Amino acid sequence: MNKNQYDVLIIGGGPAGLSAAIYAARAELKTGLIEFSAPGGKLINTHNLENYPGIDSGLTGGDVAVKFFLQSQNMGAEYIAEKVVKIDNLKSFANKIVELENGEKLETKTIIIASGTTPIPLDVPGYWKYYSKGVSNCVVCDGALHKGQDIALIGGGNAATEESLFGAGFAKTVYVINEYPSFISEGVTMKKIRDTKNINLMVDSKVLEIKGDDEKVTGIVIKTKEGIKEIPLTGVFTYVGFTPASKFLENTKITDKKGFIDVDLKTAETKVDGVFAAGDILNKPFKQVTGATSDGTHAALAAKKYIDLNS
Amino acid sequence: MNKNQYDVLIIGGGPAGLSAAIYAARAELKTGLIEFSAPGGKLINTHNLENYPGIDSGLTGGDVAVKFFLQSQNMGAEYIAEKVVKIDNLKSFANKIVELENGEKLETKTIIIASGTTPIPLDVPGYWKYYSKGVSNCVVCDGALHKGQDIALIGGGNAATEESLFGAGFAKTVYVINEYPSFISEGVTMKKIRDTKNINLMVDSKVLEIKGDDEKVTGIVIKTKEGIKEIPLTGVFTYVGFTPASKFLENTKITDKKGFIDVDLKTAETKVDGVFAAGDILNKPFKQVTGATSDGTHAALAAKKYIDLNS
Repeated sequence: MNKNQYDVLIIGGGPAGLSAAIYAARAELKTGLIEFSAPGGKLINTHNLENYPGIDSGLTGGDVAVKFFLQSQNMGAEYIAEKVVKIDNLKSFANKIVELENGEKLETKTIIIASGTTPIPLDVPGYWKYYSKGVSNCVVCDGALHKGQDIALIGGGNAATEESLFGAGFAKTVYVINEYPSFISEGVTMKKIRDTKNINLMVDSKVLEIKGDDEKVTGIVIKTKEGIKEIPLTGVFTYVGFTPASKFLENTKITDKKGFIDVDLKTAETKVDGVFAAGDILNKPFKQVTGATSDGTHAALAAKKYIDLNS
Repeated sequence: MNKNQYDVLIIGGGPAGLSAAIYAARAELKTGLIEFSAPGGKLINTHNLENYPGIDSGLTGGDVAVKFFLQSQNMGAEYIAEKVVKIDNLKSFANKIVELENGEKLETKTIIIASGTTPIPLDVPGYWKYYSKGVSNCVVCDGALHKGQDIALIGGGNAATEESLFGAGFAKTVYVINEYPSFISEGVTMKKIRDTKNINLMVDSKVLEIKGDDEKVTGIVIKTKEGIKEIPLTGVFTYVGFTPASKFLENTKITDKKGFIDVDLKTAETKVDGVFAAGDILNKPFKQVTGATSDGTHAALAAKKYIDLNS
């Protein structure tokens, strides 16, 4: 057997890809996990993962990423520290091609796309300095760490407004700071938000800086129509969009126009036979670690079934 | 506020229900988890949970169930050790009713059905006569009572084969008796089983009777291609399928004819507004712990959104 011939190649080493690797390798499939960065994906940026079921309290996302990774290694998955530039020859059963940046072409029976998304960073001083020290892109994930404190959600889209209601459940005040004059959300959501006493909607307001002390965020500086002011707070959640990491799929018809992927969530099947997708790259409203592990599981089990039925 | 008034009532305390409880309570919803038995569901019967991402090796399903449960408690979910007999008044927003066996009626804005499934009994003489006198559905729970003795696992699915490895740890001989000509399990499991000397795999073999003395099982009668024979043994563990625990939904139109539930897997929504479902009670091909935690997460987050938009 060609050493570059795989049963499953998994593109992306976040929770979805690592879970797929655990399940695929455990099912005795020759499994490669391709991730050019550290394994763990966005999990690495999660300070406290207290909502992932079964995890001991106090573990960081990074700790948990290491656990996922070691499990995938113990089961026998091969870690390939490279970047994927293209997938090709998808109509073949045994010889679908995954092309790496180093020019190597790997052959595989199945492909699991778990390349995820990257949050668009806010281009202001302090964003990276305080990232995961008060700056986050997910209220559902990290908001509970700011119970009784003030937080700001930055953005004018559905994500910012919908998540503001979630934050209002535990934060003292939730500022929703929108650079533009209006919000995108539909009537019922906006009505509810306007009726929620501890949500403060601010339009025509642009964040200039995220401030902090040695350890964490202490406030933001914003520019409004009335001038520049500082709001003291502990959490800044940016919702200015996510970019799907799917440029390497441009020659296929697997993604939608925005670069996300639709699958049958029961089986993680894309519209191409033998190609599955899992995790944040999918079109779906809730993007939690549990969902990613579930997608990865389904993709691996469906890949196993596809191989069994076609071999 | 009425002490019996909840934001979310979760029916069932397996991985799906416990995950929903973790997410719902963390979102500051008043959350009740109703489970008349020990929390953990079928997880309790799983010897080694090595495929659940993030779990340290060597933990049993029971260990992990305790972790899930404590997390839900730490987040603030209330544990209600009762049985649900009916849900009602589903068109109401704030006053949907969950009726308990003790006659109490709890009011809630949302319901998450995570009641799971129960093992199907084997339809042969002796099954009920010797139930819990040698007949069981759980090698992990009751297998140790047969140390150094012979036992049989009945079934051809993953549960039968995976649990046979557990039984082989203490029983003298483990018979795996499968009515059909082949086993469903994945490669690594079957290889391990075939390499285990005290596991005896039997296909095309049907159990006709479970025999015993006044107190306990003494053997089984099976029909094989070679004819009818009796195997002396002390334990019979059946793994022949599962019935959905959804009798309490009979007055609703939420289940299908078999008692399972279809949901939008992105949001865990049933066809009734404010009623969600998660875990093994769902119609889906792969029933893994990862999928249950994902379903539970989605149900809790969708319940939160439903409450926010309708309050």
